[in-house]
Amino acid sequence: MKKIFSLTLLFLTLHSFANPDSLFIRKIYDEALVSGQCYENLRSLCKDIGARITGSAEAKMAIKWGHDLLESYGFDNVYLQEIKVPHWERGTTEAGWIMNESGKLSKLNILALGGSVGTEGLLEGEIVLVESVSDLEKVGKENIKGKIVFFNKPFDQTQINTFKAYGACVDQRWDGATKAALYEAKAVIIRSLAQSTDDHAHTGSMHYEEGVIQIPAAAISTVDADKLTEWLSKGKVFVKMEMDCRYYADEISYNVIAEMTGHEDDKIITFGGHLDSWDIGEGAHDDGAGIVHSIEAIRLLKKLNYYNNHTLRCVLFMNEENGNFGGKSYAEIASENKEQHICAIESDRGGFLPIGFDIQGTPAQVEMVQQFRDLLFDFELYKFEPGYSGVDIRPLMQHYPDMLQLGMVINSQEYFDYHHAETDVFESVNKRELELGSAAMAAIIYLMDKTL
Amino acid sequence: MKKIFSLTLLFLTLHSFANPDSLFIRKIYDEALVSGQCYENLRSLCKDIGARITGSAEAKMAIKWGHDLLESYGFDNVYLQEIKVPHWERGTTEAGWIMNESGKLSKLNILALGGSVGTEGLLEGEIVLVESVSDLEKVGKENIKGKIVFFNKPFDQTQINTFKAYGACVDQRWDGATKAALYEAKAVIIRSLAQSTDDHAHTGSMHYEEGVIQIPAAAISTVDADKLTEWLSKGKVFVKMEMDCRYYADEISYNVIAEMTGHEDDKIITFGGHLDSWDIGEGAHDDGAGIVHSIEAIRLLKKLNYYNNHTLRCVLFMNEENGNFGGKSYAEIASENKEQHICAIESDRGGFLPIGFDIQGTPAQVEMVQQFRDLLFDFELYKFEPGYSGVDIRPLMQHYPDMLQLGMVINSQEYFDYHHAETDVFESVNKRELELGSAAMAAIIYLMDKTL
Repeated sequence: MKKIFSLTLLFLTLHSFANPDSLFIRKIYDEALVSGQCYENLRSLCKDIGARITGSAEAKMAIKWGHDLLESYGFDNVYLQEIKVPHWERGTTEAGWIMNESGKLSKLNILALGGSVGTEGLLEGEIVLVESVSDLEKVGKENIKGKIVFFNKPFDQTQINTFKAYGACVDQRWDGATKAALYEAKAVIIRSLAQSTDDHAHTGSMHYEEGVIQIPAAAISTVDADKLTEWLSKGKVFVKMEMDCRYYADEISYNVIAEMTGHEDDKIITFGGHLDSWDIGEGAHDDGAGIVHSIEAIRLLKKLNYYNNHTLRCVLFMNEENGNFGGKSYAEIASENKEQHICAIESDRGGFLPIGFDIQGTPAQVEMVQQFRDLLFDFELYKFEPGYSGVDIRPLMQHYPDMLQLGMVINSQEYFDYHHAETDVFESVNKRELELGSAAMAAIIYLMDKTL
Repeated sequence: MKKIFSLTLLFLTLHSFANPDSLFIRKIYDEALVSGQCYENLRSLCKDIGARITGSAEAKMAIKWGHDLLESYGFDNVYLQEIKVPHWERGTTEAGWIMNESGKLSKLNILALGGSVGTEGLLEGEIVLVESVSDLEKVGKENIKGKIVFFNKPFDQTQINTFKAYGACVDQRWDGATKAALYEAKAVIIRSLAQSTDDHAHTGSMHYEEGVIQIPAAAISTVDADKLTEWLSKGKVFVKMEMDCRYYADEISYNVIAEMTGHEDDKIITFGGHLDSWDIGEGAHDDGAGIVHSIEAIRLLKKLNYYNNHTLRCVLFMNEENGNFGGKSYAEIASENKEQHICAIESDRGGFLPIGFDIQGTPAQVEMVQQFRDLLFDFELYKFEPGYSGVDIRPLMQHYPDMLQLGMVINSQEYFDYHHAETDVFESVNKRELELGSAAMAAIIYLMDKTL
């Protein structure tokens, strides 16, 4: 009996020595799940700060919040990186009504798209349904001129990965106003880029192109879009709407950065999410989750006394939502300073269950990451496929084309119920799923630091 | 250009012919995600029926609900299978208070465990903390006799799969009263088997053993358990509690069954979940989800005109929660009727994101199922490991030891926030995740029917 016990012990000991990575990652998960701080950090970011669009008072407070929190953990360097950002505000008026030919009236809950111009008073007009941006030509200028275009492309529900459904209709939000203006439309209303049929409108970034008249653009909920479609099937529909959203002068803002200095060299592994959010809800999933994932990841590695080879740099990027000047400036400054960037990792797909990492790199880099598949399977991470990394870190690749980039893959099924909507609040995030995201991020940083 | 197009078409055509399984499963998912009925079926089961403990009026109505719904889909055989079931009721009184030595009083929200005897009026006594069932001996009869045992074993948060955490402390619910009675305790209070720290008590089955005095047993929320622990750290704590729960005479009830008759033979593939639930909440995740997964799976296969080799039998089992007489009787009747059972599949782990199937079978059977790993990876199903099938179908294996059994694996992170608690309501289920579960079930039934 004693002999068996000793043999078992010997085996376990050998086994342990054979899998130091597995043992260390187990410690990361234990700390994250038992004594994790990311959930309470997210509560604070959502409740003490709230929605924090670039240029707002809340965004300024979020910078202080992030800086103070990272300082409290005692990292080697905690600092602000100055950047220039746009400043757009929704304003105080946002109201819409639809009417049919008999004069029947109904409230239309409009939500200005981020970056839209205002209506300059009450804007009135007939609505013309255009199923998608690519249908503008088919509908023709004669039917669009002087009217308000309603783009109604819905999510393709058959996509298993909901980001694909989003990608297939995001042009109506980003490009719809500019494209409709070319057909002389007066304004644009879009069906929200949302997964479910509900009452919440979803905002998000749009842009104007040089030389094209700037017309107002707003989103309506999927329920309202269905109602509007039904009204339009029965005859003419007119809208009255007013929005006083506008741009102010550009401002100075900051990325917030904390580091664990490399013990072996100055090469840098960047990881982060974005600190700004849209101006409704609390930016809990987008991207409060990515912020607390990243802060927790570096806290976990420090707490476990990890001896890092390269410099581990946690970045809370500003202004991802409407301009990405945080990400672009970070990349430019890195290049100017001749920093050596070997890897960047982003979390910007919500606080739901993490399932793996999308790999943006060469086939050899993809293979290098995939070697850890078996190791990470025990932690229910299984997806390690070539894919997109993230908006904030993507500009680095222009300056460092040989670097590896990773985007944390997260169960996407519920994400577009909350994305850019008033529903994206702290209560929609599950504690354990958030903690697993933090641990997954710390684990991949550890593996990349050891391997690269 | 035209040549390239023709070659592409040829390639696609060949590719399609090479993967008929993949194409058919794609159709299953399309139908489930675009025209699925499981979500509205679950709404009806939760809202039109509600909680449906075995023996209740709601359980009787749920049988009619299931039978009518399956008949409306026009399957070959829809019938009720008579079984004998226990009948336990919570009663109308469930109240508790704690007091310290200074007479400070606080409400204790107790929830009788399923199967507990009542208190026969107000039961009073001093509480003794016992960390887990295995600690009874250490605490000793001298400290337990005449007192009320408080079992306080929490979930091990480091378990990635939360069912392992549940399994490690379920004995305090199932066995606590019997074991504590052997030490002459007067009653038992347990810390709820719950993942999160919140205000909801979780019920669940307990049992008494022949020849041991039957003492009352109740659960309290994790928040109350922490409060009680804190009070106990400061001095003696006394409880007053009353519950009038009790057993009534056994009753006749039914499993509800629908079939698609096999075209090639009489061999049977059974799949299902359980129709009964506990008597609080709405039994949405446990196991309304499994019920509508199973009904939708057979509806999808019929809708797509699937030509099934074996008989596909959808079973809505009664009485899984407190006795499993549905599952046991189903197995006995199958054996008596000399039916040929080759495979059984169960969904009883909630309506969250499906991630794979646990395989209960021989190594050859495990390998057979695992051959579909790559095919199902496109649908984000990746876990196909040896494991446990399900409570309802497990008894079949006593009669058919060579059969294959599968248990649908579902993201477990949130399950024990809802399990057996008043929070387990329709609103806690996401439409798409539920639909993906139905499609996954239909896909695996299809693959097993083709392969076995």
